[in-house]
Amino acid sequence: MSATSITNEYVRQLDRQHVFHSWSRQSQLDPLVIAEAAGCRLHDYNGREYLDFSSQLVNTNIGHQHPRVIEAIRHQAEQLATIAPAHANLARGEAARRILERAPAGFSKVFFTNAGADANENAIRMARSFTGRDKVLSAYRSYHGNTGAAIAATGDWRRVPNEFSRGHAHFFNPFLYRSEFWATSEEEECERALTHLRRVIECEGPDAIAAILLESIPGTAGILVPPRAYLQGVRQLADEHGIMLILDEVMAGFGRTGRWFAFEHFNVVPDLIVFAKGVNSGYVPAGGVLISEPICRYFEDRFFAGGLTYSGHPLAMAAIVATLDTMSDEGIVEHADRIGRERLTPGLAELTKRHAIIGETRGLGVFHALELVSDPESRAPLPAATMADIKAALLEQGLLPFMVENRIHVVPPCIVLPEEVDQGLGILDDVLGRFSLTL
Amino acid sequence: MSATSITNEYVRQLDRQHVFHSWSRQSQLDPLVIAEAAGCRLHDYNGREYLDFSSQLVNTNIGHQHPRVIEAIRHQAEQLATIAPAHANLARGEAARRILERAPAGFSKVFFTNAGADANENAIRMARSFTGRDKVLSAYRSYHGNTGAAIAATGDWRRVPNEFSRGHAHFFNPFLYRSEFWATSEEEECERALTHLRRVIECEGPDAIAAILLESIPGTAGILVPPRAYLQGVRQLADEHGIMLILDEVMAGFGRTGRWFAFEHFNVVPDLIVFAKGVNSGYVPAGGVLISEPICRYFEDRFFAGGLTYSGHPLAMAAIVATLDTMSDEGIVEHADRIGRERLTPGLAELTKRHAIIGETRGLGVFHALELVSDPESRAPLPAATMADIKAALLEQGLLPFMVENRIHVVPPCIVLPEEVDQGLGILDDVLGRFSLTL
Repeated sequence: MSATSITNEYVRQLDRQHVFHSWSRQSQLDPLVIAEAAGCRLHDYNGREYLDFSSQLVNTNIGHQHPRVIEAIRHQAEQLATIAPAHANLARGEAARRILERAPAGFSKVFFTNAGADANENAIRMARSFTGRDKVLSAYRSYHGNTGAAIAATGDWRRVPNEFSRGHAHFFNPFLYRSEFWATSEEEECERALTHLRRVIECEGPDAIAAILLESIPGTAGILVPPRAYLQGVRQLADEHGIMLILDEVMAGFGRTGRWFAFEHFNVVPDLIVFAKGVNSGYVPAGGVLISEPICRYFEDRFFAGGLTYSGHPLAMAAIVATLDTMSDEGIVEHADRIGRERLTPGLAELTKRHAIIGETRGLGVFHALELVSDPESRAPLPAATMADIKAALLEQGLLPFMVENRIHVVPPCIVLPEEVDQGLGILDDVLGRFSLTL
Repeated sequence: MSATSITNEYVRQLDRQHVFHSWSRQSQLDPLVIAEAAGCRLHDYNGREYLDFSSQLVNTNIGHQHPRVIEAIRHQAEQLATIAPAHANLARGEAARRILERAPAGFSKVFFTNAGADANENAIRMARSFTGRDKVLSAYRSYHGNTGAAIAATGDWRRVPNEFSRGHAHFFNPFLYRSEFWATSEEEECERALTHLRRVIECEGPDAIAAILLESIPGTAGILVPPRAYLQGVRQLADEHGIMLILDEVMAGFGRTGRWFAFEHFNVVPDLIVFAKGVNSGYVPAGGVLISEPICRYFEDRFFAGGLTYSGHPLAMAAIVATLDTMSDEGIVEHADRIGRERLTPGLAELTKRHAIIGETRGLGVFHALELVSDPESRAPLPAATMADIKAALLEQGLLPFMVENRIHVVPPCIVLPEEVDQGLGILDDVLGRFSLTL
């Protein structure tokens, strides 16, 4: 089929006939067709435009098709597309160096994986080996990936049909708007969440726990910015019991919150940092683990029992080098911070005031969520059918949203322009206004 | 650092300082530096050449830097590097269609992953969901990947420090040269291996077993071509008990054995096919699961509890499309079959006759192993230190081998030329001749 004759219908048919989709019932799919993209804009084959307020799966931090990253992929592809991880490769070393330069002091090496799930798998593996312990504690409101240990560490409902990995226990993380601790202030939520975690540690047996695994800011679970002192409290609990603290920065890292790493907001340093997505905006699949000095030292003379064919894949590495250099040169992290403070936070606060359907808005940088409710008093989540109608209305107006349960996650690329924020918020204002009337 | 001033030493230093390696003790690494590659040849920054008899991790079936695949990556990168899996994308549909065209009748859809490990994870997930059963049976002599369920399904020693996934049991697969069944012929090995598997199924509880997971030809375990009737026997046992048969074609698939799929040699069709590596020669990380019609139908209205950000990544998909088209247009699978029958099999048989150090050679297509022994009678494996010396001697002569335990796996790209086979076998002849003298 020639390029000129390609239609939305052809691509959709091809997809429905041959492609099996993630996290769904296959008969209920009606995928959007995307032909090309640039910056924060996507287009289908009819020239229809969508403003990307999803960053796809919150990964295109640098926007779509940044010319410097595309050029780096092209250049690396022409030189050396792939090489086994056992060999040394320039792009891999340069990528690792750049990631380490952006990390806090005390991190020595990077282990590269294909994405976030296997990065979490390997961070858990390192923590278990280093501590000689078994258990991994993680939060109910969390998502850590779809492979064996990663999905068992995940807290949300997708874990339940997948609980085949042993040694996992879960605790409630802080979320004041839907507090599990009957708290009425951030301070109280923080204090009680830490008390709860301490009790879970005691009950699971401190000496049995290898790691506490947390998203610095839980993303898919609802962009749950923790109370200021929470992660420091978790760090103290971990230190008290020789437990490794693994922070999952897959979604929150590399600019998303207006910092290189989201934990920078909370004055805390973990033992292992898990990353993927934003590190190269997902232009080529890649993830990895940043390893602190004591754990690196441990593995100097001890066998590390993990590995994979595409660890440090040259194309992915070249995309990391170009992405990080570009983000630094163009001040993209600072831009995400500024546009968050100056436009998104106040703009979403304004929407919240105007529409009773918005129960709460929260976030940092270009990482925000709107919690939609059918009753502001009881905070009852908006039903799934209404959420589907809202999604259709937003798409109809050319806004591609990121929707999870009763929430709209407002997660445009870090490079989003002020006028694009205004356009997106305008569409949200219009659509949410219409649906607020039905409350 | 400018391109002209890059040296082997710089790249090696950069690697040792910043990059954490797979399956190793970090202090004992001395990685080879690779700067560029083409076809079956690799070069370092000193212009030193290596003939690639490893295909890296047995993935560059189409050779290094095939211009059509590089061009396809470049073209796709310029159009659309990444897109969320929920949307429909031309390259993804075209890749799925091409893979299905090469599969046996009865396969309907493709689920894409990042590599072989998470493809095995998702095949296991599908089998568990479809059967409502828990256990996965797999072979001791096997490797299935490094994530939670994949590494627990793996049979080799790397499983042992990673046994955190429940519901796995292992059985002995056929391998006449080191028979676990006191067999003295292929027929006897086959019959006894099937009796053994039947007993394991009975003892684990047939109604508890979701899947039997097997590499069609176990690769890393030693290129263990099964007796002709073995896989048919396994298929019958699976059918008898409603157990899904998952064949892992990650290493053996897409041309490696002179067929699109290695199971074609054995007149058997599985329920799920796991692939990665050769599907696009690893130019961009990708893997996936080919799903048969009944399992596809099951998931039409039932939720599939798996997924990942880079499922069906456009760059990887474009590389699949170009790789498969090129392999068909250039007759690369047929070439692998012919070069195997006409050069590699007789050439390796000749070496085996000449050198007492070779206990056995076995294989198909461009997928062979030499079993090195210190005593042809007892078949005692050659010690690790001698294997390391052999590796150094091969590298010294410009041959990059793939070595596992006491074996040399002879696994050049499928495009390997007759004169390259002769060159590689010549180096093996010379080096193994020298070491045979020490027996």
